[in-house]
Amino acid sequence: MNVMITGVDGYIGWTLAVYLAKRGHRVAGIDNYYRRQWVPEMNSQSATPISNMTDRLLAFRQHLNQNLIFFRGDLTDYNFVLNAYKKFVPDCIVYLGEMPSAPYSMIDFQHASFTQTNNVIGTLATLYAMKEVSPECHLLKLGTMGEYGTPNVDIPEGFFELEFRGRKDRMMFPRKAGSWYHQSKVHDTNNVEMACRLWNFRSTDVMQGVVYGTRIDEMGEDERLITRFDFDQCFGTAINRFCAQAVIDLPITPYGKGNQKRGFLPLRDSIQCLTLAIENPPEAGEYRTFNQFEEVYSINELAKKIQLIGSEFDLNVEINALENPRIEAEEHYFNPDHQHLLDLGYKPTHDMDSELRIVFQDLIKYRERIEVRKEAQFPDIRWDGTRKKSVYL
Amino acid sequence: MNVMITGVDGYIGWTLAVYLAKRGHRVAGIDNYYRRQWVPEMNSQSATPISNMTDRLLAFRQHLNQNLIFFRGDLTDYNFVLNAYKKFVPDCIVYLGEMPSAPYSMIDFQHASFTQTNNVIGTLATLYAMKEVSPECHLLKLGTMGEYGTPNVDIPEGFFELEFRGRKDRMMFPRKAGSWYHQSKVHDTNNVEMACRLWNFRSTDVMQGVVYGTRIDEMGEDERLITRFDFDQCFGTAINRFCAQAVIDLPITPYGKGNQKRGFLPLRDSIQCLTLAIENPPEAGEYRTFNQFEEVYSINELAKKIQLIGSEFDLNVEINALENPRIEAEEHYFNPDHQHLLDLGYKPTHDMDSELRIVFQDLIKYRERIEVRKEAQFPDIRWDGTRKKSVYL
Repeated sequence: MNVMITGVDGYIGWTLAVYLAKRGHRVAGIDNYYRRQWVPEMNSQSATPISNMTDRLLAFRQHLNQNLIFFRGDLTDYNFVLNAYKKFVPDCIVYLGEMPSAPYSMIDFQHASFTQTNNVIGTLATLYAMKEVSPECHLLKLGTMGEYGTPNVDIPEGFFELEFRGRKDRMMFPRKAGSWYHQSKVHDTNNVEMACRLWNFRSTDVMQGVVYGTRIDEMGEDERLITRFDFDQCFGTAINRFCAQAVIDLPITPYGKGNQKRGFLPLRDSIQCLTLAIENPPEAGEYRTFNQFEEVYSINELAKKIQLIGSEFDLNVEINALENPRIEAEEHYFNPDHQHLLDLGYKPTHDMDSELRIVFQDLIKYRERIEVRKEAQFPDIRWDGTRKKSVYL
Repeated sequence: MNVMITGVDGYIGWTLAVYLAKRGHRVAGIDNYYRRQWVPEMNSQSATPISNMTDRLLAFRQHLNQNLIFFRGDLTDYNFVLNAYKKFVPDCIVYLGEMPSAPYSMIDFQHASFTQTNNVIGTLATLYAMKEVSPECHLLKLGTMGEYGTPNVDIPEGFFELEFRGRKDRMMFPRKAGSWYHQSKVHDTNNVEMACRLWNFRSTDVMQGVVYGTRIDEMGEDERLITRFDFDQCFGTAINRFCAQAVIDLPITPYGKGNQKRGFLPLRDSIQCLTLAIENPPEAGEYRTFNQFEEVYSINELAKKIQLIGSEFDLNVEINALENPRIEAEEHYFNPDHQHLLDLGYKPTHDMDSELRIVFQDLIKYRERIEVRKEAQFPDIRWDGTRKKSVYL
């Protein structure tokens, strides 16, 4: 299959490119290297020393026996996007080219505005380019479980049968996002659902949980094939950030009470699920939603797991909660469905401990790179728009 | 009260400014005259000969005994917006500064992208400027009944009590918009609801029906105080466009079967409702939704009403359906609540016939101005992204 990955230089984008090539798909990618600017803006760097794109592409050809067809440019630039899709007509577009951080979007107006413009207009440009070049193409869009927020009821996969005052309809399940970033994903969801409804497009919308992990087996041992691993307050997600803290002897820092529950899945499962969606496209006109995660944990449960595995590596890991810079429910009900991917054949790894051991092995190797940027792990971006370091509770 | 009206040069914006000044409020306004560009882009003009802003402001001072404090600039320009709110610190911002046309947003990528950027980022800039200048300020945002689409169940006012698998929560009622413009309003709704939740802002979100009419009594006889009246395929709404067709002996043109039902209200009632919301602000942290319309009609029912009133003016009005350029349900259930404004004291005019007579009187006076732009009434913007004139059915 011809698969175009937008944001191919990113954490999941690069990993997916390697995996799909290994499975024999033809892969192309788009990126403008924004992530390589955002992370330094947060005074941080990837824990893994990622190569520049030229070297990545060389290693890709060497190990995977194909050229990754790469287009450098901005996804909100319609003519650029249109030309890329004309040159590499995709059967599937995996849209990973969004600014993916909630705190980054909450910094100030400029960051909020950039986030919503980049994400919403970028997706819109791809919809119009699909219309022009390949309306049959499958748009695999990455949403987030955060679009739903934490309602006091079960969370179905995208849609539900509403019975209201004696009448019925199948409706989109109401979203309740908690940051400008999460709202941008809701806006995308609404735009893409409409494109399927009006233009007979086909799309899979993946409400992804929090992804963690450093690698997939297909990357092998060539360091040029590894993917990035961020640990700063903006681009480091909970498990990844906690592991990075642990390897440099910093306490692990849940925010607030730490009873926030989220769905998690390892990088290898994220890639497995995306591949299942790619290889089993929806019908024309079908907009389907997958809630994509493996297990639900509270942040405190995670911290304890990481503490335990850390001790196997002779790390004396403390847990010390930080003042929560976010405005979010710290105690809440959380019970989302996640059956659709299992129905497609998803086999969960079900082994967070082994995955964490791999993460620790990798991160210990790059310990120095985390150590020099340790300050980046302390959050100072607050949901009320101010900027002030959180203190230990 | 200090009321800032964004989009003060527009159909409702100008009318509201006149009305509020008459009631003794201090009025300021922002505009960049985009509407004066969009309508000519559609090869059309306002049926009423609206003055330039300089003359409008002179007439305003003369008849209403106050200066309207006017800021010319772009609502997506944060520094401009911030300075305007610093110079005129508003108790209420009435946000009417959006691109308001569904067909205009469906023309192509550039128009879709412009619509969503202008509307969403403009509103976001106002939220951040409020945060900086006056977090106590009441944001009166104009949404549209079109955000809900036409579900097969009743439409509550914004929120509903969801009972799902034995648990309950108060949730936003799912939206299902049918154009990029309508989606931009949904995005705004989601952004503003979040600002109230996270930042303790207060907002009234008005899901407005289709507004019609040429004037309010407070405009008097000075032609410089009249508001614009559009009749082209993009900026002319159903009743207004039909009346304009009738006065130049064109057939009235429902799209498709004409059984589409919508909520309607006269301009004077729209102004009455907005004023009620302004003078009865919500609590801090409260985000409330008003469905704002008076009566529900199908497009065919309207056409017949206009035909009848037209005959009083010796107009021989034909009704001739056009091929529907939109993708929309032409037969559907439609039963939205609209109790909140009645609870606040809204007294509906309940007299469409009298209102239509006033519209006809005014339009007959400006008949020539409609006649020279008659081609602009024939739709050619199709929801499938093509451009082709609709033919009579």
